[in-house]
Amino acid sequence: MIRAGIVGGTGYTGVELLRLLLPHPEVEVQVITSRAEEGERVDTHFPNLRGVCDLCYTAPDPETLAKLDVVFFATPHGVAMDSAPELLARDVRVIDLGADFRLADAEAFAHWYGMAHRAPEALRAACYGLPEYFREQIAQSRLIANPGCYPTAVILGFAPLLEAGLLHQDTLIADCKSGVSGAGRTGRVNLIVPEAADSVTAYGVSGHRHRPEIEATLSKLSGETIELQFTPHLMPMIRGIHATLYGRLRQPLSDAALQTLFAERYAQEPFVDVLPFGSHPATRSVRGANVCRIAVHQPRPGQVVVLSVIDNLVKGAAGQAVQNMNRLFALPETLGLTQIALLP
Amino acid sequence: MIRAGIVGGTGYTGVELLRLLLPHPEVEVQVITSRAEEGERVDTHFPNLRGVCDLCYTAPDPETLAKLDVVFFATPHGVAMDSAPELLARDVRVIDLGADFRLADAEAFAHWYGMAHRAPEALRAACYGLPEYFREQIAQSRLIANPGCYPTAVILGFAPLLEAGLLHQDTLIADCKSGVSGAGRTGRVNLIVPEAADSVTAYGVSGHRHRPEIEATLSKLSGETIELQFTPHLMPMIRGIHATLYGRLRQPLSDAALQTLFAERYAQEPFVDVLPFGSHPATRSVRGANVCRIAVHQPRPGQVVVLSVIDNLVKGAAGQAVQNMNRLFALPETLGLTQIALLP
Amino acid sequence: MIRAGIVGGTGYTGVELLRLLLPHPEVEVQVITSRAEEGERVDTHFPNLRGVCDLCYTAPDPETLAKLDVVFFATPHGVAMDSAPELLARDVRVIDLGADFRLADAEAFAHWYGMAHRAPEALRAACYGLPEYFREQIAQSRLIANPGCYPTAVILGFAPLLEAGLLHQDTLIADCKSGVSGAGRTGRVNLIVPEAADSVTAYGVSGHRHRPEIEATLSKLSGETIELQFTPHLMPMIRGIHATLYGRLRQPLSDAALQTLFAERYAQEPFVDVLPFGSHPATRSVRGANVCRIAVHQPRPGQVVVLSVIDNLVKGAAGQAVQNMNRLFALPETLGLTQIALLP
Amino acid sequence: MIRAGIVGGTGYTGVELLRLLLPHPEVEVQVITSRAEEGERVDTHFPNLRGVCDLCYTAPDPETLAKLDVVFFATPHGVAMDSAPELLARDVRVIDLGADFRLADAEAFAHWYGMAHRAPEALRAACYGLPEYFREQIAQSRLIANPGCYPTAVILGFAPLLEAGLLHQDTLIADCKSGVSGAGRTGRVNLIVPEAADSVTAYGVSGHRHRPEIEATLSKLSGETIELQFTPHLMPMIRGIHATLYGRLRQPLSDAALQTLFAERYAQEPFVDVLPFGSHPATRSVRGANVCRIAVHQPRPGQVVVLSVIDNLVKGAAGQAVQNMNRLFALPETLGLTQIALLP
Repeated sequence: MIRAGIVGGTGYTGVELLRLLLPHPEVEVQVITSRAEEGERVDTHFPNLRGVCDLCYTAPDPETLAKLDVVFFATPHGVAMDSAPELLARDVRVIDLGADFRLADAEAFAHWYGMAHRAPEALRAACYGLPEYFREQIAQSRLIANPGCYPTAVILGFAPLLEAGLLHQDTLIADCKSGVSGAGRTGRVNLIVPEAADSVTAYGVSGHRHRPEIEATLSKLSGETIELQFTPHLMPMIRGIHATLYGRLRQPLSDAALQTLFAERYAQEPFVDVLPFGSHPATRSVRGANVCRIAVHQPRPGQVVVLSVIDNLVKGAAGQAVQNMNRLFALPETLGLTQIALLP
Repeated sequence: MIRAGIVGGTGYTGVELLRLLLPHPEVEVQVITSRAEEGERVDTHFPNLRGVCDLCYTAPDPETLAKLDVVFFATPHGVAMDSAPELLARDVRVIDLGADFRLADAEAFAHWYGMAHRAPEALRAACYGLPEYFREQIAQSRLIANPGCYPTAVILGFAPLLEAGLLHQDTLIADCKSGVSGAGRTGRVNLIVPEAADSVTAYGVSGHRHRPEIEATLSKLSGETIELQFTPHLMPMIRGIHATLYGRLRQPLSDAALQTLFAERYAQEPFVDVLPFGSHPATRSVRGANVCRIAVHQPRPGQVVVLSVIDNLVKGAAGQAVQNMNRLFALPETLGLTQIALLP
Repeated sequence: MIRAGIVGGTGYTGVELLRLLLPHPEVEVQVITSRAEEGERVDTHFPNLRGVCDLCYTAPDPETLAKLDVVFFATPHGVAMDSAPELLARDVRVIDLGADFRLADAEAFAHWYGMAHRAPEALRAACYGLPEYFREQIAQSRLIANPGCYPTAVILGFAPLLEAGLLHQDTLIADCKSGVSGAGRTGRVNLIVPEAADSVTAYGVSGHRHRPEIEATLSKLSGETIELQFTPHLMPMIRGIHATLYGRLRQPLSDAALQTLFAERYAQEPFVDVLPFGSHPATRSVRGANVCRIAVHQPRPGQVVVLSVIDNLVKGAAGQAVQNMNRLFALPETLGLTQIALLP
Repeated sequence: MIRAGIVGGTGYTGVELLRLLLPHPEVEVQVITSRAEEGERVDTHFPNLRGVCDLCYTAPDPETLAKLDVVFFATPHGVAMDSAPELLARDVRVIDLGADFRLADAEAFAHWYGMAHRAPEALRAACYGLPEYFREQIAQSRLIANPGCYPTAVILGFAPLLEAGLLHQDTLIADCKSGVSGAGRTGRVNLIVPEAADSVTAYGVSGHRHRPEIEATLSKLSGETIELQFTPHLMPMIRGIHATLYGRLRQPLSDAALQTLFAERYAQEPFVDVLPFGSHPATRSVRGANVCRIAVHQPRPGQVVVLSVIDNLVKGAAGQAVQNMNRLFALPETLGLTQIALLP
């Protein structure tokens, strides 16, 4: 059994990790930390776990964590970077669901997150945990930067086109719609029901931290410098990301060829589902499931629209983290991740 | 023109007061206060007011307020009681949308609100501002305790039966469902979309501050000591209260007689709408409107069910406050309050 | 492997059965029927099943169904009664998620459902499938009447008190709030988002088909004639039932004694979770899970309030049907039913 | 008083017209038609109108309509074209909230709406009723094609840039998010709460009827052939459209110059509100109000993002129709249209 710990267990990615890890046949969650809730039972905060989780929150303790096989950081940026180096030194694998190791460039990190990177060496050793594109590197790594939710949806949707060099690299637009859980379990006025329900609003139009993450990854995959217009929107729903992706082809390509490109690229991927050409996936079709559903359109010749939906807390966070863990420990990648989406 | 001020203008009752008072033909809102947002334009916080409101928040200043004709307190309990006596002394009328003057009994106030009442004399002079039952007293008063949202829906639904002495006084149950705006514009985790949307939960089952307010008022109207089981529930919606009221008749009464009782009691009331017997009013039928819609049922002989719906921010707060203001200044009670509910 | 069929597979209980049965280790779903969608793949209607379900809808065929071990009817009332007798005769077990066999009294059925019962013999052999109260009978039966969603929540909440004879039998009130999926997957105007979202309304206050089902079952369990005021409400949410239950004690009972009564009654029940006294369960704590969470209150001496929440599609329908199936085939009752609720 | 009639009064644009016209000081609604509901009171279908509307539905009768001053068609396409010519001949002004007269090109109409245009002469006389761009023509017309909801939001957002010739004409993208009321008051399964709440989905990506309407209007305003990628999405909310508009500048332009362009273009417009540069308008800021709020962004030099929000039923339908009516009858354009948006 893999002995696992979760640092920062009072947020939505923390409880979602528990939902996935508690029934996982090869994992035992031994530690879950929270300074604020130290000593309290986890299931008093998350009553869905009553009967399946007897854990109490503990204060994070380096010695305790060092005895585990893997530690998940479900923390705001700036936390994992301080603990990861020692854990790695003591042979504990680290999966950071926060942002500390997503941007390989420490300066870019400092620019976008407003703090110097305090573990640049670990940063160099980190692997971007998007299994569909970095599967081999993940297996050989010990520190995984779990991708952001928006980047997961956007990269999976754009990458087949960019790997193949098919798009003009300066025309990319990702118009993304996210459920409110993407903002975290935090009492901000703009997230309460009377503000965020029954309304739609864009935010961060002029710059959002997930943009450099997407641009860097897509640039890496395409071998070109990719510039993206990334527009996130807050949706009146709980879970789900719908990424509407726009690009222009460098040369004519038939609808069938476009579809084949995606179908073949993801044919062996258990967690990417390419719908028939011209489909319209709904976010509810992935609610609670570790899957990205993708549909391709070409409304006018040369103009490609890709629709990509995920559950931001599963394939966009906790599910992908478990997928990465399975890789790290040479388990079947789908182990513990076969939940069917809850519909309706 | 009535010169009006609003103390505590950053919450939902404050902005709703502005929505109703700005187009009111006999009112000019001259002052709106907020310590936290002093100097900021109101319409940066409430963009629905762009183009119709040039006010900026000011710090509350007794001298400024004393020059007004009426001051609305849209504040948490404990604020109005400190300012009201001086304003009254300087001939300013006061309408408190908070709870400071709702419970005539200072000890009950202390018990339920956890603080001593600091203006017991004003409390004695205050009038409970439910025009349908205290119309004359309101006209002669200068300090109005605007009823709570739940009490408005519950009292309007039960009172005709209790005035007539028709119900066993110990069998009253008010099962109430409220939209989240009833909890105020406050960043509490339990109110954010991922917690409060797509879910229903009861709260305060063993005791809620609106219960003594309802019991005292119903006892007054019936001349008996009324005991109520009051169960509030948080609904995944923005506005609206649905009160489902249960009582048992002391003697047989036909459906027609029940209906007549309600129809006659409210025949002259502009803001209480009695639906045909056996109807099911929806909260959306009153969204944004200063109206209470009521329907009566008798599923089994002797068992009465009354359904009563209001918009908690209008008839349950700001609209009723304007109705009271109209009374205070001998204006037609409906002036400025004829908005039609927004449906859908 | 148990060979299972689903008759009427285009509604919400049908897809929910598939979500639970497809990963069930002892079941193979071999047939799913729909006249309207004959020949179409199930996963084109329910894209959450893409990749896990290759079934196509077939027209219902008695010969095909007769070769199965168990047939689930996820159909409107009036369908199962016509097929069940022949299936039973050919040794197929039948679990009806519809209403045909819930009311033991054929006349009551005719009254409430507006049609004569066409299989009175089968009706006499049917067992009401609420395992917590009829576990032994279920195991020995071959035709299961799966309880309605409201009855499940209400009976589980009231029954411990009534079994013990503690409540006045004429004071029972069940004020119930249901998500819209309870109305089925049907294009009715009153269920579309602009009508049913952001609003609350009661319905069927003067009489609902689930009332006689609840009354009959509670009467059976208590040995007395139970009369219930049952008030269903439509909530602006997808899944979930919140039953708020009111009763009056015949004799004084301490809070601790009440709590003990519930705790002991359900101590061995895997799917009933008694919360600490005075708790407020949210429907989201059971979303997608086969569990009923219950909390007990005594706001005033003698006045009991029980809060009972379920997912109407799981413990209120498909999950309970699988639980019954497990019983019928002598499998562990929890097999395939350990999904953790999706929260947020 | 203007004698007005509404043909097709059981949908959302019909009831919204009533909400706006009933209190309008210069209008009397004398007729509202519905074949299906003939003889029934309007307020039984729309209880928000109880107390303010005594009208009953009548079957549409040419003679009755011919005696009115103006007739609003709130009907599906294909209805107004059959009645308008006669009404016009009898000097009745016609405002069609449907699509019959929006596309000046009868062949385009036939292509997109799947039926030949049966009133080509009237079509030639019709005026596209977007007052901000066709104010003078509207005043001189007698047949108004009220714009679609999406076109209103998109054209108001793009037009200042295109009038000035600032955008590459082949890079325009309108990614639009609409509340469910945009689909009409119709019982379609995909619109019910369990399907459309808590989920986002695109639709009509490869072609939607509003695209040619937008392209034709923008082409007219710019003097160039505009090609638009138009992607509508269904949002889990009741009202509101959020248009996120993307374009590329032909030459560098400062943020300030962009802002000035919009601010000056709309400085005199009572119903277009240009927010400070870089703002993020929420749809709820226009709920129930006849206003379009617009914000401009330039995330990277040359890349313009315009955010444009309206209430689809008000500025996107009924409100704009009343605005057009005011023009037709030489009334102040804002008469009866000063409702403040309902927030929260």
